Amino acid sequence: MSEIIATYLVFDSKHDPEKKAEEIALGLTVGSWTDLPELEKNQLKKHKGRVVSVEGLATGGAQKETEAFIKIAYPTVNFSFDIPAILTTVFGKLSMDGKIKLLDLQFSSELKKAFPGPRFGIPGIREKLNVYDRPLVMSIFKGLIGRDLNYLLFQLKEQAKGGVDIVKDDEILFENELTPFEKRITEGKKALLEVFETTGHRTLYAVNLTGRSSKLRDQARKAAELGADILLFNVFSYGLDILQELREDDNIALPIMAHPAFSGAITSSPYYGLSNSLLLGKLARYAGADFSLFPSPYGTVALERDKAIAVAAALREKENYKPSFPVPSAGIHPGLVPLLVQDFGIDSIINAGGGIHGHPDGTKGGGLAFRQAIDAVLSGKSLSESAEAFPELRKAIDLWGSFEVKV
Amino acid sequence: MSEIIATYLVFDSKHDPEKKAEEIALGLTVGSWTDLPELEKNQLKKHKGRVVSVEGLATGGAQKETEAFIKIAYPTVNFSFDIPAILTTVFGKLSMDGKIKLLDLQFSSELKKAFPGPRFGIPGIREKLNVYDRPLVMSIFKGLIGRDLNYLLFQLKEQAKGGVDIVKDDEILFENELTPFEKRITEGKKALLEVFETTGHRTLYAVNLTGRSSKLRDQARKAAELGADILLFNVFSYGLDILQELREDDNIALPIMAHPAFSGAITSSPYYGLSNSLLLGKLARYAGADFSLFPSPYGTVALERDKAIAVAAALREKENYKPSFPVPSAGIHPGLVPLLVQDFGIDSIINAGGGIHGHPDGTKGGGLAFRQAIDAVLSGKSLSESAEAFPELRKAIDLWGSFEVKV
Repeated sequence: MSEIIATYLVFDSKHDPEKKAEEIALGLTVGSWTDLPELEKNQLKKHKGRVVSVEGLATGGAQKETEAFIKIAYPTVNFSFDIPAILTTVFGKLSMDGKIKLLDLQFSSELKKAFPGPRFGIPGIREKLNVYDRPLVMSIFKGLIGRDLNYLLFQLKEQAKGGVDIVKDDEILFENELTPFEKRITEGKKALLEVFETTGHRTLYAVNLTGRSSKLRDQARKAAELGADILLFNVFSYGLDILQELREDDNIALPIMAHPAFSGAITSSPYYGLSNSLLLGKLARYAGADFSLFPSPYGTVALERDKAIAVAAALREKENYKPSFPVPSAGIHPGLVPLLVQDFGIDSIINAGGGIHGHPDGTKGGGLAFRQAIDAVLSGKSLSESAEAFPELRKAIDLWGSFEVKV
Repeated sequence: MSEIIATYLVFDSKHDPEKKAEEIALGLTVGSWTDLPELEKNQLKKHKGRVVSVEGLATGGAQKETEAFIKIAYPTVNFSFDIPAILTTVFGKLSMDGKIKLLDLQFSSELKKAFPGPRFGIPGIREKLNVYDRPLVMSIFKGLIGRDLNYLLFQLKEQAKGGVDIVKDDEILFENELTPFEKRITEGKKALLEVFETTGHRTLYAVNLTGRSSKLRDQARKAAELGADILLFNVFSYGLDILQELREDDNIALPIMAHPAFSGAITSSPYYGLSNSLLLGKLARYAGADFSLFPSPYGTVALERDKAIAVAAALREKENYKPSFPVPSAGIHPGLVPLLVQDFGIDSIINAGGGIHGHPDGTKGGGLAFRQAIDAVLSGKSLSESAEAFPELRKAIDLWGSFEVKV
């Protein structure tokens, strides 16, 4: 029988976890069971949820809560094969039912077929850039609200000259008169071509797709026509199904970068909501994100290291989908590259804002310092050793410090 | 200047709340300020966020967190007038920035004009039912997964015969072969007409609108053509903007009932996410929900009373929008009617599942008991007094108890 298996972490001081698990399995499927006549049981059997396991019943004394990992299997015959139906089934009412966190979902192979995964994924993006052997470097524009197109294009070129592979819009840059969406694409393209013609380095630009839900498809198609490289998308302010719709449209066929804006409202609590690895990892990938950004473990406010690594693992786990690029973000500077490579590997993206623009030599210098740090790490050298030959890297380390790791 | 003002509750042990507020106001708008040349300050002035207030700095000693209410005003010129852009601006990155909860949003009158509010609202729904002077009674189907249309229609008629005003689908009933969407509408309509012709009582049926986002509009239009009464919609598994799109479509023009499935993932934590009154109250109403369901304060797992009342207040607050019906749900039985009327007033919906179907006389008896309880409360009688004349009410009270309140 095709099922989806949900793993919950339940904290409870009143109910027996085994009983709670039974209530969930029945309550969210056929409603009742034991009192049903045999005939009805036969009819409803294939719709009935089942308790897969209840584990880790660490009771902490009379007053304290029990903590249990509960796995429930829901027959996929009960719902349509879309993310809203799945979320409503496995965490609709249940999301309001006390301290319960949805940690993971295991899709049956039949159910998986309904989800596309990324169109390009890591191999497709690498092909576009012709870069196969190192983490990519991404940078973000700095303070574009209220600024005009010239300001934007100057920043874009400086970032490209520094050797970054991808430049992304700020997620809070919406349609506006000074730097309209279509102009950002067409003029940005020209600016990046200009850099390519002088340096031979290709940079992709991720443009922020925004506006009303029903207009996104046309706007994304227009972006494709105009030759956009990548769409940045605030998927969690819209809904995962919208991401999937954009991914599935062959007239768009652009890489999609999932921004985690608003996701913290769903993932931050240890007691409620969804795990980061499920939301920003598995579901973002299944729905079609080629890239998924998430908080790095190194910034001032950050995801714990094991949680950030779990997001990356979900994005790259062996599946029938292409792997998506993990993009640990915030608090990144060149001195962290050894740690980033250790924690997230070669198939990841090193993404910086302040660590690029705040470089003593400016934006271009910041990009160069990152590329130098990557070269150092991949050739087995320490950053301080490499910094002797590369002034940009040296200045970055002097300013922000470095975290040497034996990779 | 047109602004949206966000109220946050911030818990922090490391940062000074005043400083944190300044960082938010700048970081989520123009990026930097003090170091800018005068010319740029003039250019960016209308885009700059501002700290409206920082209050309630109750520090609880050296190790403890400060708790501060921070209000930030964001110029509306910075974003497009849609909910995804607003959420991304005011709670995009910020949702991942430590213990911070978004309690409220005050829209400028200019911004409000971009949102429709409910098409029918409380007055429009009352007009459809021709019931003006009492809370409405709603009931929910019981265990329909795996059941056929005859089973559904029997339940529907029993509920209508008991005098309920609205019957709603279970939110986990998706498109399926046994009880397909279109059949539920057409056959349900016939069944309810049959009851109307014998009893003179009109009941509306809220049918669950499900499936892929891009198909919802057509499916909802089809529902309208087939004469559906109300659309039930799992808005938080999709996205608030999708609700708004459905509301705005004049070819749909049906009342929409917002189900809170999945909302607990966003609202349950005291430290993260959004308040219930903002998500299930204000935003659901602005986007166009005619009804909003939320956990009642009386069930085993429930919203605290003040929070549930705050949701209802946001749904009915004096605005240029029509008021939406508050529907406190779960754990409701006839004995609670005095409390419900006290807490939620006449302009609310009394919604029951087990409290209808679990009545000793069955579903019809459950409906009658609710109507009898409402009549009692509105005529100033106690339930136990009224129960002398009404056997259904008496049996309900004997089974579930009663909570008498002087209204």
